[in-house]
Amino acid sequence: VEITSKIDRIAVVGGGGWGSALAIVASQNFKVVKIFTRDAEVAEEINTKRTNECFIPGAVFPQNIIAVTEGKDLNDCTFLINTVPSQFIKHHYTEKQINLENKYIINGSKGIDTELLSTISKVFKKFYDVPKHRFAILVGPSHAEEVVKGLPTTVVCASQNMLFALFVQENLCTPAFRVYTSQDVIGCEIGSSIKNVIAIAAGINDGLGLGDNTKAALITRGLAEITRLGVAMGASPQTFSGLSGLGDLVVTCNSIHSRNRGLGERIGKGEKTSDILKNQKIVVEGVETAKAIFNLSQKIDIEMPIVEQVYRIIFEDKSPSLALQDLMARESKSEWY
Amino acid sequence: VEITSKIDRIAVVGGGGWGSALAIVASQNFKVVKIFTRDAEVAEEINTKRTNECFIPGAVFPQNIIAVTEGKDLNDCTFLINTVPSQFIKHHYTEKQINLENKYIINGSKGIDTELLSTISKVFKKFYDVPKHRFAILVGPSHAEEVVKGLPTTVVCASQNMLFALFVQENLCTPAFRVYTSQDVIGCEIGSSIKNVIAIAAGINDGLGLGDNTKAALITRGLAEITRLGVAMGASPQTFSGLSGLGDLVVTCNSIHSRNRGLGERIGKGEKTSDILKNQKIVVEGVETAKAIFNLSQKIDIEMPIVEQVYRIIFEDKSPSLALQDLMARESKSEWY
Repeated sequence: VEITSKIDRIAVVGGGGWGSALAIVASQNFKVVKIFTRDAEVAEEINTKRTNECFIPGAVFPQNIIAVTEGKDLNDCTFLINTVPSQFIKHHYTEKQINLENKYIINGSKGIDTELLSTISKVFKKFYDVPKHRFAILVGPSHAEEVVKGLPTTVVCASQNMLFALFVQENLCTPAFRVYTSQDVIGCEIGSSIKNVIAIAAGINDGLGLGDNTKAALITRGLAEITRLGVAMGASPQTFSGLSGLGDLVVTCNSIHSRNRGLGERIGKGEKTSDILKNQKIVVEGVETAKAIFNLSQKIDIEMPIVEQVYRIIFEDKSPSLALQDLMARESKSEWY
Repeated sequence: VEITSKIDRIAVVGGGGWGSALAIVASQNFKVVKIFTRDAEVAEEINTKRTNECFIPGAVFPQNIIAVTEGKDLNDCTFLINTVPSQFIKHHYTEKQINLENKYIINGSKGIDTELLSTISKVFKKFYDVPKHRFAILVGPSHAEEVVKGLPTTVVCASQNMLFALFVQENLCTPAFRVYTSQDVIGCEIGSSIKNVIAIAAGINDGLGLGDNTKAALITRGLAEITRLGVAMGASPQTFSGLSGLGDLVVTCNSIHSRNRGLGERIGKGEKTSDILKNQKIVVEGVETAKAIFNLSQKIDIEMPIVEQVYRIIFEDKSPSLALQDLMARESKSEWY
């Protein structure tokens, strides 16, 4: 299938909040939108009640969205939007028998595979042989709750295949959902993943009762360390000043919707991470990302003080206030070193 | 006076919230801190009750802070921290007979002179003949209300005279108030001024009931246009990713303390700017800055769509929702162009 031919359908894989929001956006431009979920009850609810109350309360699914639970149901879709959480991608498509041969993947999940220590584009390449020219990432400051309300949202679609990025731009854009294009896949992947770790730090700041000044410092110094790692991995520094870097970081660190910031807030108030995550149905991406990025930064010798402190709080039970103190006590120096 | 000799005193010019906060910070390291105010009642209150309830409720002034109202009272201070609002600087020091000969100026005010269309360093040069090597700027994400509570705060001090920046760093740093150094004066001036205009836009976003996604887009695209102007004026692009750019922008756009964001919120809810500003004692820097920067951007032909829309809302009574719509409707394109 050539991507220039008339395409009337698209599939979203993953029936969570973000998958639902992207399906609702896509339903404005495509004739048919399939949404794949492993949860038969969710599929049933979407198909009959046109809602998904557990994952995105209040959202209404138009009639041209069809929820499916079998891999073969996606055979007629060439374009698949992935919203399966990052740690599950490598098994999910095999287990669910979703055939990825000749498919184009638009990835909407933000994270780093903790085993491979790699970004999602590499997971699709290694496990499903999806080549770079059939992979795109769609990220930016976009809380699902606001997207489904039709509040103005901007995102960036990055692919090494510029035609693919332009196709996504043209076909997912609506008056309230603007898609910019980029070719810096690794930059968009790094920025949109690590921001979840900085958001945990921002939440800890809130939980400890520290103020806006400290949070702004965490965001600023956080973006500096994200950029440092990204550039070492081949990204363009400019990408981190854009929607997938700064934009996504700002929204996540300040939003009441963010699970990562929310987790941090509870940690800051004294709860243990393991207790909070017990029995939780929703994945908090920043936790695994903190581990992956801490290990990666050690391996390639990049200084990432905020990621390191978040890692030590979550995985080594370091006291949050001591960790913040250690960050502030770093030697005064010139802003850029 | 050599800046390396033992300095036991410093003066703050301006008795508002930020001047008060900086005096309280300085009082931890200097033996004597003078604070100059044109308001005899404020001086009296600081000297007797050790408070300044009108401008910074709750703050307590240590005994080594002395409020003064005569220019000659500052003759024994070589270092002056300016917090007089940007539009008043060019007359204030003459009117109040504050002698600036051989003085070192640390500027803490954020704005652009609307007549000269120039930054504060140029105002001090043109009107008071303060040379570049005796000028520094001290900016960053630092709400006065939080600084006086001792909440951790980071700022940057920029001067073309690196020894002067290092002097400020060494003498104003406290455990909760960290000063980084920089040599990019124009970059710090541009970033910290224009952020007030973007903050008005962020407030309008809040007033209109739009969400975090839109605000993150405004912040991201806002920083891009600030950087575009700054680089055209000789700043280093990196400065805008730092505390005086991104950091200060983020804190102002999200904070309940910000007057600029607050003004925007009321505009977004339908009030007219002129009605809001009538009878207001406190200066909202972003209003004049919007005019100055809009004119400057037209003059040197730099595209600044957000500043332009804020200008049209404030000075031409354009409808806020139409302005936001015009911003969103701009042609989809690649993220960097």
